[in-house]
Amino acid sequence: MKVIVIGAVGTIGRAVVEELAPRHEIVTAGRSSGQVRVDITHIDSVHAMFEQVGKADAVVVAAGGLHAGPLAEATPEQLAIGLQSKLMGQVNVALAAQRYLNDGGSITLTSGILSTEPLRNLVNASMVNSAVEGFARGAAIELPRGLRINVVNPTVLEESMAAYGPYFIGFEPVPAKRVAKAYSRSVDGLQTGQIYKVW
Amino acid sequence: MKVIVIGAVGTIGRAVVEELAPRHEIVTAGRSSGQVRVDITHIDSVHAMFEQVGKADAVVVAAGGLHAGPLAEATPEQLAIGLQSKLMGQVNVALAAQRYLNDGGSITLTSGILSTEPLRNLVNASMVNSAVEGFARGAAIELPRGLRINVVNPTVLEESMAAYGPYFIGFEPVPAKRVAKAYSRSVDGLQTGQIYKVW
Repeated sequence: MKVIVIGAVGTIGRAVVEELAPRHEIVTAGRSSGQVRVDITHIDSVHAMFEQVGKADAVVVAAGGLHAGPLAEATPEQLAIGLQSKLMGQVNVALAAQRYLNDGGSITLTSGILSTEPLRNLVNASMVNSAVEGFARGAAIELPRGLRINVVNPTVLEESMAAYGPYFIGFEPVPAKRVAKAYSRSVDGLQTGQIYKVW
Repeated sequence: MKVIVIGAVGTIGRAVVEELAPRHEIVTAGRSSGQVRVDITHIDSVHAMFEQVGKADAVVVAAGGLHAGPLAEATPEQLAIGLQSKLMGQVNVALAAQRYLNDGGSITLTSGILSTEPLRNLVNASMVNSAVEGFARGAAIELPRGLRINVVNPTVLEESMAAYGPYFIGFEPVPAKRVAKAYSRSVDGLQTGQIYKVW
């Protein structure tokens, strides 16, 4: 299958490429690197990416930013960061993919453990990750032509503990290699509307 | 207790006022009716509402719009309707309430059954209702001074079946009077971070 991986240079993206490459033709995409450049926060850019790549069988998104900071000081503008980037960026990819993917193709988005396991300073992540999962549940039943959509929900990565460890005290980190397997379940499997937790 | 009910003229809002009024001092609020006028999509308007009301013990939000339409034709702008109104409108109230509610006060928001039970044409509701619930889970652990936040998640109302019945075929509607009791659990109780389903 031909699989587009958006965010292919991130920690998860690299592991996904390594996991999928032995079986599939990979097209890497990203904002500032990859075979195709795309800014997922603009749907026109997402359409241009699909036009450039041509027919594909799957798209994986492992990209999207969030705001971190105390709830007491949070502004609507700060919370909009995650809504525009990690939520609507991924939703833009899913909306556009409906037109471009081959029949039976798959869309795989990324949420995270914060959707149900909140942590200090990360209300934006709880809100946005929950929204990504809700969007996928809603979209799964309505996608045409056998298209599928699933979400991978990872806990903190071993590779990210240097940066995010202080947020995730008490959490067992997992290697990106293990998270990547969940993307294979979505791309190579037949399920839709699933949230694959890797905790 | 002094309780602000935003959306007090809606089907749920009226039932909440009827449920709470025997025990509490109610201040009704809304965009175009109520004792206090507020546009929850603008946080400055929300701050002005709290300033006008003065110290309160609880705020209930039963307001917020969503987009309904086919996923195949959905645009980012259409999905932003629910994000700006039902999600960020309620989030604005919660962010502002941190400053104005008395110690131990409560914030009660409204999601809906679509967060986990998707229906045709309602992907915006699945996304937004899930986000409201995720926000509340995240905010609950971080609110200061014993403040609490909960979400009421109703199924379709008996009173709304004339308008929304065709979306909810096979669902058992509930009377607004029964949904209103869940708001009492939040206002009069001590729990926080809860999603009270009324299905």
